[in-house]
Amino acid sequence: MFKQILLITALCVTSIVNAQTTIDDSIFIKKISDNILTAPDAHDNLYHLTKKIGARLAGSNGMYMAENWGTFTLQSLGANEVYLQECKVPHWVRGGTDKFYINVNGDKKKELAVLALGNSLGAGKKGITADVVMVSDLDEMAARANDIKGKIVFVNYKFDDKLINTFDAYSKMGFIRRNAASKAAKYGAAGVVIHSLSSGENNYPHTGAMAYDTNYAKIPAAALGNYDAELLAGHLAKNKKITAQLFTYGYFLPDTTEHNVIAVLKGIEQPEQIITLGGHLDSWDVCEGAHDDGAGIVQTMEVLRAFVALGYKPRHTIRFVLFANEENGLRGGSKYAAEAKAKNEQHIFALESDAGGFTPRGFSFTMSEAQHAKVNTWKNLFAPYGGDKFTSGGGGSDINPLNKIFNTPVCELLPDSQRYFDYHHAANDAFENVNIRELKLGAINMAAMIYLVDKYGL
Amino acid sequence: MFKQILLITALCVTSIVNAQTTIDDSIFIKKISDNILTAPDAHDNLYHLTKKIGARLAGSNGMYMAENWGTFTLQSLGANEVYLQECKVPHWVRGGTDKFYINVNGDKKKELAVLALGNSLGAGKKGITADVVMVSDLDEMAARANDIKGKIVFVNYKFDDKLINTFDAYSKMGFIRRNAASKAAKYGAAGVVIHSLSSGENNYPHTGAMAYDTNYAKIPAAALGNYDAELLAGHLAKNKKITAQLFTYGYFLPDTTEHNVIAVLKGIEQPEQIITLGGHLDSWDVCEGAHDDGAGIVQTMEVLRAFVALGYKPRHTIRFVLFANEENGLRGGSKYAAEAKAKNEQHIFALESDAGGFTPRGFSFTMSEAQHAKVNTWKNLFAPYGGDKFTSGGGGSDINPLNKIFNTPVCELLPDSQRYFDYHHAANDAFENVNIRELKLGAINMAAMIYLVDKYGL
Repeated sequence: MFKQILLITALCVTSIVNAQTTIDDSIFIKKISDNILTAPDAHDNLYHLTKKIGARLAGSNGMYMAENWGTFTLQSLGANEVYLQECKVPHWVRGGTDKFYINVNGDKKKELAVLALGNSLGAGKKGITADVVMVSDLDEMAARANDIKGKIVFVNYKFDDKLINTFDAYSKMGFIRRNAASKAAKYGAAGVVIHSLSSGENNYPHTGAMAYDTNYAKIPAAALGNYDAELLAGHLAKNKKITAQLFTYGYFLPDTTEHNVIAVLKGIEQPEQIITLGGHLDSWDVCEGAHDDGAGIVQTMEVLRAFVALGYKPRHTIRFVLFANEENGLRGGSKYAAEAKAKNEQHIFALESDAGGFTPRGFSFTMSEAQHAKVNTWKNLFAPYGGDKFTSGGGGSDINPLNKIFNTPVCELLPDSQRYFDYHHAANDAFENVNIRELKLGAINMAAMIYLVDKYGL
Repeated sequence: MFKQILLITALCVTSIVNAQTTIDDSIFIKKISDNILTAPDAHDNLYHLTKKIGARLAGSNGMYMAENWGTFTLQSLGANEVYLQECKVPHWVRGGTDKFYINVNGDKKKELAVLALGNSLGAGKKGITADVVMVSDLDEMAARANDIKGKIVFVNYKFDDKLINTFDAYSKMGFIRRNAASKAAKYGAAGVVIHSLSSGENNYPHTGAMAYDTNYAKIPAAALGNYDAELLAGHLAKNKKITAQLFTYGYFLPDTTEHNVIAVLKGIEQPEQIITLGGHLDSWDVCEGAHDDGAGIVQTMEVLRAFVALGYKPRHTIRFVLFANEENGLRGGSKYAAEAKAKNEQHIFALESDAGGFTPRGFSFTMSEAQHAKVNTWKNLFAPYGGDKFTSGGGGSDINPLNKIFNTPVCELLPDSQRYFDYHHAANDAFENVNIRELKLGAINMAAMIYLVDKYGL
């Protein structure tokens, strides 16, 4: 009985798979793979973006260079059309070299590694000098409201190394990074420092976006390198008196004009139906943004390049988008969706790569159960390329608005997460820390996904 | 109907899993995971082995230091017993700094990056000077036997970037590395150079074992860095006349005495039945051997440490083995199996980690179909830790002799393969290129496998 059921099920599963895909699909995906693995473009494009252009925060000169380079590169890859989509972006400037000094029990001052959080405002020319109060999280901060006035609050909340998926640990800390300053300002604090949102066995401080609650004073906020955060926590756990000086210089210039850079392969059967894939072109100001999100940019270009090289004529229109301003505003992704709505476009699928150029594990989808069941029948085609773990709930900052507006099924590439937060938003997010084969494997899986959605629909 | 079958099958699959494993197993594996991910030991041990000891080829001072360190560390981790198992090992010495110079069409000489292959003999004090003949593989070498006499033969056979599993590309080149020298000497060649067995986007030359066929002259043999191999191939493809000088200095000293270092957790139910896990303590002379196989050593130690920390009392006896001389002799693994045979020991399972400290993908087994079916019922327990791809055919250089002698089921950890041959046997196989979280995840999967085999048998 049991054997029989297994047999019947095996036949059913096979027939589902065969109903959807053919041997031609695995052959075409192998051609994509061979093409991408043997082409120099991924390496050369990432090198140019990181080493020749470098940091490219919204409003910076690097971002304008990146727009021009992105436009030129997409054009050279043989898209039917490349165009720019204008959007207004915030223009935050770090304004100086952030510093944090501590005096322990009145001893000689010691400098700790620090970066102001993105969007935070500077501490003034003289910085701020205050005693440091340590709290374990925002709940303890609220409970100790009376101890905080005039102080620099250190939120001693660490990246949870026990979580296998490092994005879970990152998410747990995200609320603190974003909100700690205003939560502390509510009780009269002078400034806030936090642990870096990092798994790194090093002392690089990691920046990232914060936001002020306009009801309270806009106090400076910064992240410490993990080793130095441990050092500070160690002193305070021993009840040592710590006086600190925090120097940050952040400010906003007026919003400025940037662009999403969009390449098009026009569909030959249903050109009005649009498939989008992309990554974001901007990066934080302190790094080359090689993983975040140079990887997603280069992979998007590789999918276009391989499709053109293999003479692939898509049924639907495919847009390859280099989004502006993901890091501190999401204005690029918002604009893309708003214009799609204004033009009443038909968006049938969107895919984003913004989790680093690491060896792929799979994809995460936000779509209907029926659509999910359909993509699940394609899994075996991804197994040779490592991307066959399919989960639910994913999407991407820049494409989620499409899902919200049109209920477009969205999807993100899931690279292995172990190393991402060693580099994310820190100075070591550099070309040298990307393995080009891993990056290419991500592109291969992305190309396979776009090809299958284009061929079979959802 | 279809839904019903799926339901029945789902129930059947669940019941298979439940017949084998319990919720306690996933809880215990989570405890192992938490313990290993939060302990500093993996980092600190790898740092000591690579930075304080460093290279440790059989017969070298580094290997003796590593034996002492390994013994001390295993003792400190709380094993019931730690002992040394003596074996004779070859003692090859590089003897100098390998050099390869080329003159292109009589122009000024240019130095290329090169390493003599392990076990190869030196080119003499004056080196060898000869014209270079390029062949694409060993077949072309045989076909062009008449062109080769007195020449340096360059086998222009490259790492196949199209193969997703890099071990497949490595295997394709392994025969060339091992045999090219004697194949060329048969036709009177003066020396041989090959491409490095490497996927690396860099110019590090990679060494590795070769062997002479004693019927022919023992000519020098070396591997070029990949960029320089491409450069040389480019010149020769344009029919340029290349004269080269090859300097290598390898020689053998008499065999010397080393040891497998073995820690024991004694079984409380069937102590006579032995489970083995391990890695190899030796490395090539040109690198720290951080991935190859510092990772396997540190992971083996982590399994022991976590078991002791969690108070785990195994049913069977578990041996944690740091094998000697894997790289250029396999004498450690051979001795372990020979002594097991001489003592008529019962070896019920062996697991090796020797494919780098990268994020785990799964395991590969050599065992009976029934045993394979049994381990397959455990797969879900590995999924949260990334190690749930189970394949056939695997084992490990040091444990395969157990399989041969006793038919012991053997198994290897399969880390993601993309980066391994960037570092393997080259100077950049260094501590800095190991991500400690990835290394730890490998140890967690290994510990889970040993725990399940110990609890449920095979």
